[in-house]
Amino acid sequence: MMPIGHTRWAIAEGYIPSYSNGPEPQFTSHETVSMLNASEQDAHVRITIFYSDREPAGPYRITVAARRTMHLRFNNLTDPEPIPRDTDYASVIESDVPIVVQHTRLDSRQTANALLSTIAFASHE
Amino acid sequence: MMPIGHTRWAIAEGYIPSYSNGPEPQFTSHETVSMLNASEQDAHVRITIFYSDREPAGPYRITVAARRTMHLRFNNLTDPEPIPRDTDYASVIESDVPIVVQHTRLDSRQTANALLSTIAFASHE
Amino acid sequence: MMPIGHTRWAIAEGYIPSYSNGPEPQFTSHETVSMLNASEQDAHVRITIFYSDREPAGPYRITVAARRTMHLRFNNLTDPEPIPRDTDYASVIESDVPIVVQHTRLDSRQTANALLSTIAFASHE
Amino acid sequence: MMPIGHTRWAIAEGYIPSYSNGPEPQFTSHETVSMLNASEQDAHVRITIFYSDREPAGPYRITVAARRTMHLRFNNLTDPEPIPRDTDYASVIESDVPIVVQHTRLDSRQTANALLSTIAFASHE
Repeated sequence: MMPIGHTRWAIAEGYIPSYSNGPEPQFTSHETVSMLNASEQDAHVRITIFYSDREPAGPYRITVAARRTMHLRFNNLTDPEPIPRDTDYASVIESDVPIVVQHTRLDSRQTANALLSTIAFASHE
Repeated sequence: MMPIGHTRWAIAEGYIPSYSNGPEPQFTSHETVSMLNASEQDAHVRITIFYSDREPAGPYRITVAARRTMHLRFNNLTDPEPIPRDTDYASVIESDVPIVVQHTRLDSRQTANALLSTIAFASHE
Repeated sequence: MMPIGHTRWAIAEGYIPSYSNGPEPQFTSHETVSMLNASEQDAHVRITIFYSDREPAGPYRITVAARRTMHLRFNNLTDPEPIPRDTDYASVIESDVPIVVQHTRLDSRQTANALLSTIAFASHE
Repeated sequence: MMPIGHTRWAIAEGYIPSYSNGPEPQFTSHETVSMLNASEQDAHVRITIFYSDREPAGPYRITVAARRTMHLRFNNLTDPEPIPRDTDYASVIESDVPIVVQHTRLDSRQTANALLSTIAFASHE
């Protein structure tokens, strides 16, 4: 299959709620970056996290194997450092092969879930 | 009407919850790909499903008639194989005429619905 | 202000729930197309509705005044014909000046609201 | 890091609910514009608000520092004037350096939250 996507993406909106309602881990409040690598080569991905009041953190390094998708919870990033809860952030996702990036949040702080999702911004440069 | 859209699309985020609350089938948790074929020719569509830990499945073949929309539930795909529940996936949608593709999920696992929708990623190549 | 946007847009996903919970009209289940005309000229807009099993309906003709936004409920379209409830549809929005189009649904069938929104697909042709 | 984004963005959909459920300020119904400035220069941002029945308001002037994100609640804009509640609006966001813009609403009028988010429309001109 022909590769699809771009090599630089950005998500301006990020926020991991600090608490949840419902059984774990499905109903844990979380924020996910979904990456699709439809190409025949592994994608070496670098994620940089931007904050409102301090210098950016990262890069976080992840490999998305050829012909695979990865739905990565920002909650689970730990190296070089975890992302604090209840804190505004944004992210830039860079890959050495074209990928497609989408962003989803499950917010289960109240008794019913709230969901949001949006395609990330693809840089055409 | 002039055709509108593209012939290659991708959705990085996919997940069909395994249970639901509320009357069926409207409130069954589901994941939908909405396709609009505004052209004067039938669109022959091929959907490929990507997983995190196995080879892609498909193609699933669907025809969207000229001047019609189809809102297809991923839940209902069975040939060549159904999509497992509670499993991360992604999809690539290819058509022989330009179409427009949007992705929607209704999650009714808790007593209130959660909805998400996003335009799919359109490849300009 | 310089105009912003495009003259042809599409929304592949459309569905007006047939019932609601909560005080009217704010909590009536509805589906909205939000149009921004940042230009100095009135925008003459034509909306065509596509169905899954019959010929398209329309055009519905709307004017969005210069330097104005209009958040139009599909529920309220009546000429040439209303859009049936609980029916899948899609839409193409055409304007004689560039506009920006976004799609939102409030689903209040269950006791809590569900919201979705997505930017429409902009044709660059 | 190389800048990412565009200098002109639009959000066709805007609406600040007038009431809320749940502890403040996290659960106050709000509407947010998230801006990412990944460049090495401060971004001087001008926001113009469009209404359905009166002339546009603004510009509202905000600075997003270099290598920072800002998640700005429309609720908090006051200069030159606050945005009225329960009123349809739209916005154009202009910056002197490339930024990425995303739009999110938390609607907590009913006992459960509803969330929506979408990438803003990026003008390529």
